[in-house]
Amino acid sequence: MQAGLSSANTPEAIVGRCAAAARAAQHHLAQLSDPQKAAALHRAAASLRDSAGAILAANAKDSAESERGGLSPAMLDRLRLDDARLDGIALAVEAVADLPDPVGEILEKSERPNGLELSRVRVPIGVLGIIYESRPNVTADAAALCIRAGNAVILRGGSEAVRSNAAIHHAFVTGLVAGGVPAAAVQLVPTQDRAAVGAMLAAAGQIDMIIPRGGKGLVARVQQDARVPVLAHLDGICHTYIHSAADPAMAGEVAFNAKMRRPGICGAMESLLIDTQFGGAHGVLERLIEGGCAVRGDARVMAIDSRIAPAQSSDWDTEYLEPIVSVRLVDGLDEALAHIADHSSGHTDAIITDDADVAEKFLNRVDSAIVMVNASSQFADGGEFGLGAEIGIATGRLHARGPVALEGLTTYKWCVRGTGQVRP
Amino acid sequence: MQAGLSSANTPEAIVGRCAAAARAAQHHLAQLSDPQKAAALHRAAASLRDSAGAILAANAKDSAESERGGLSPAMLDRLRLDDARLDGIALAVEAVADLPDPVGEILEKSERPNGLELSRVRVPIGVLGIIYESRPNVTADAAALCIRAGNAVILRGGSEAVRSNAAIHHAFVTGLVAGGVPAAAVQLVPTQDRAAVGAMLAAAGQIDMIIPRGGKGLVARVQQDARVPVLAHLDGICHTYIHSAADPAMAGEVAFNAKMRRPGICGAMESLLIDTQFGGAHGVLERLIEGGCAVRGDARVMAIDSRIAPAQSSDWDTEYLEPIVSVRLVDGLDEALAHIADHSSGHTDAIITDDADVAEKFLNRVDSAIVMVNASSQFADGGEFGLGAEIGIATGRLHARGPVALEGLTTYKWCVRGTGQVRP
Repeated sequence: MQAGLSSANTPEAIVGRCAAAARAAQHHLAQLSDPQKAAALHRAAASLRDSAGAILAANAKDSAESERGGLSPAMLDRLRLDDARLDGIALAVEAVADLPDPVGEILEKSERPNGLELSRVRVPIGVLGIIYESRPNVTADAAALCIRAGNAVILRGGSEAVRSNAAIHHAFVTGLVAGGVPAAAVQLVPTQDRAAVGAMLAAAGQIDMIIPRGGKGLVARVQQDARVPVLAHLDGICHTYIHSAADPAMAGEVAFNAKMRRPGICGAMESLLIDTQFGGAHGVLERLIEGGCAVRGDARVMAIDSRIAPAQSSDWDTEYLEPIVSVRLVDGLDEALAHIADHSSGHTDAIITDDADVAEKFLNRVDSAIVMVNASSQFADGGEFGLGAEIGIATGRLHARGPVALEGLTTYKWCVRGTGQVRP
Repeated sequence: MQAGLSSANTPEAIVGRCAAAARAAQHHLAQLSDPQKAAALHRAAASLRDSAGAILAANAKDSAESERGGLSPAMLDRLRLDDARLDGIALAVEAVADLPDPVGEILEKSERPNGLELSRVRVPIGVLGIIYESRPNVTADAAALCIRAGNAVILRGGSEAVRSNAAIHHAFVTGLVAGGVPAAAVQLVPTQDRAAVGAMLAAAGQIDMIIPRGGKGLVARVQQDARVPVLAHLDGICHTYIHSAADPAMAGEVAFNAKMRRPGICGAMESLLIDTQFGGAHGVLERLIEGGCAVRGDARVMAIDSRIAPAQSSDWDTEYLEPIVSVRLVDGLDEALAHIADHSSGHTDAIITDDADVAEKFLNRVDSAIVMVNASSQFADGGEFGLGAEIGIATGRLHARGPVALEGLTTYKWCVRGTGQVRP
């Protein structure tokens, strides 16, 4: 399959040329050994450190322009780099370099009665596309993860970080090339035309998977428009269900952490379901309220504490990402499961209970990417899962679910070794 | 997420109601044990046998109408059932019932330093859609595979088999229901409106995966229009490369089988690459020609045998599915690999060689779902791979590749068992 080699400068043609060059580079990259890929990433990290001056100067221009343009303080903070943040970016690349190479793992092996030897072997996916917003660290983070798993990657960052991304990309690729990786294995889309995003999303067969990194607006647009498979989560509407047999102290502690440790992450609890037979509801809610959380509840919940506001029906489908929680009383496990089936975004849902049978039923019946017993939903994270690093959390049902790390950036092929067998 | 419960009779509303009912049925099905699912499928098979009279009568009407309507003899043959074929359908359902249940398998397990126990567990995908053409056996085959892996399925068969499919579906579901599986776990789309196919393809979030079963026109349309992930292969442009170090007898035998055993299957060889340093080209081509295969070649190939016709450039990208093969001489492994990278459809590609190093290079560098050494590409089949049965062969790069059996109809979730851990 040959990608378009047109010399036109439409966004489609530009993305097509990027993808064709990426495919060729990926075939080359796939031949490199594990130590070669690791060494090239270490060189990329070293090059990022060596280029600190240029990167910070580029970032200062981006930041100044964005500040003049009225970018919000939160977005400006995401955009800004300093020595410590740049060191963090280089350290993250080094950490990915030191992760075990997933490629080449033999997933299964068998010998057929006719003597054919079959093996299913992990291989890179191919050409990935990353579409992201203001954080320039994604340029290096995502590129490192893609390269570690043997993939080429086409990066499309936010317009406010264009100089920062270019400087980081230049430094990163300079190191990679010194390590024997083709430059085209990591590309920034060479146009600021917004239509280039649409061209990436439409490039089925040229780009194998798109990963959006950013806010809900970006993810929704990518999921809506993409013809290329997308690995992402749109919402993290995570539930914690406090069962009748929950330990009240544990329930209070875990529910508080699930919401309040960092209310703005995708694994934060957004809805709390409390069993009517659980005796400690008042304490759990008091702890949340006194810790600064706004609680919204149904009529029965409001009766527990006068500081609780009424929940609207839309509250059960809202990802607040703020210190706000919706609370509902439920009559037993089945009602909790039904609520979760109706309202969960399939990210992370948890139960607090000392009843092992109920815990297993909950694990079995909740159809989300991550299901937890007696733990804070804030653990929904690739690092916490021991995956080393994550490219994102996926709530789709195919390919990879939950925290996605290197393994999720691979696929497999079947290798068949024969001695001249023909099929009867 | 609640699917549309509108009472409208647009194709979208009809498919939405099917999908909502399928989702609820799937949640119920997912709670059944392995023996319960197996027993229900055995009841479905028994019910198919018990309903032979009704199914064959329905099929006779379909066949008569299609014959009057001028359906091609090949299509009519695919449509027609008799006692033996119906017995084959019931046997296939029984064989699937007896396959091991993939659901519940623990793919990996770990304990984190904080005591959290993580496991990644195989679960059903959810709601699948099967879109197929004239073969009514797909109604039972595909339903059995979907149910065995715990999925609900929405079936959309060809209009020429509408009565046959309805009769098979009725019998199958009667057996399933007697075995405790909800009827909505296997549904036929209850309208003949062609727009229902489009509604299925657009039902992202309601249907989790679509599998087209049929000719290239159907697959192309599904791949083109679907918003739901598709598991399929469009083309089987399979290559065999005879390396310089190939045994001439093995090369002749394997190449002949790869093309001529059944030229019309997707794993049939369509292009033969012969190394210029291989001494036995004349014998290999003579065997193909004398076995009834039309050979098309480049100028150097035509010089080998006067019965060889010239190949056009389009021949290298053509899936003949007939006793025709395109043949090219190549100067070494790299040229063979380059040709395959440019022209393979990513289905199955094979090398014939006695050089173990070259064989490993070929296995490593060819980026197809199935790569073979010293074996006929006609082995590309779930049964031959020991998978028991296959729902199809996939050439996409995500989720599942090559022959897809029960495991490809599953995904996984993460289960986290804690003792009250909160994230610092």
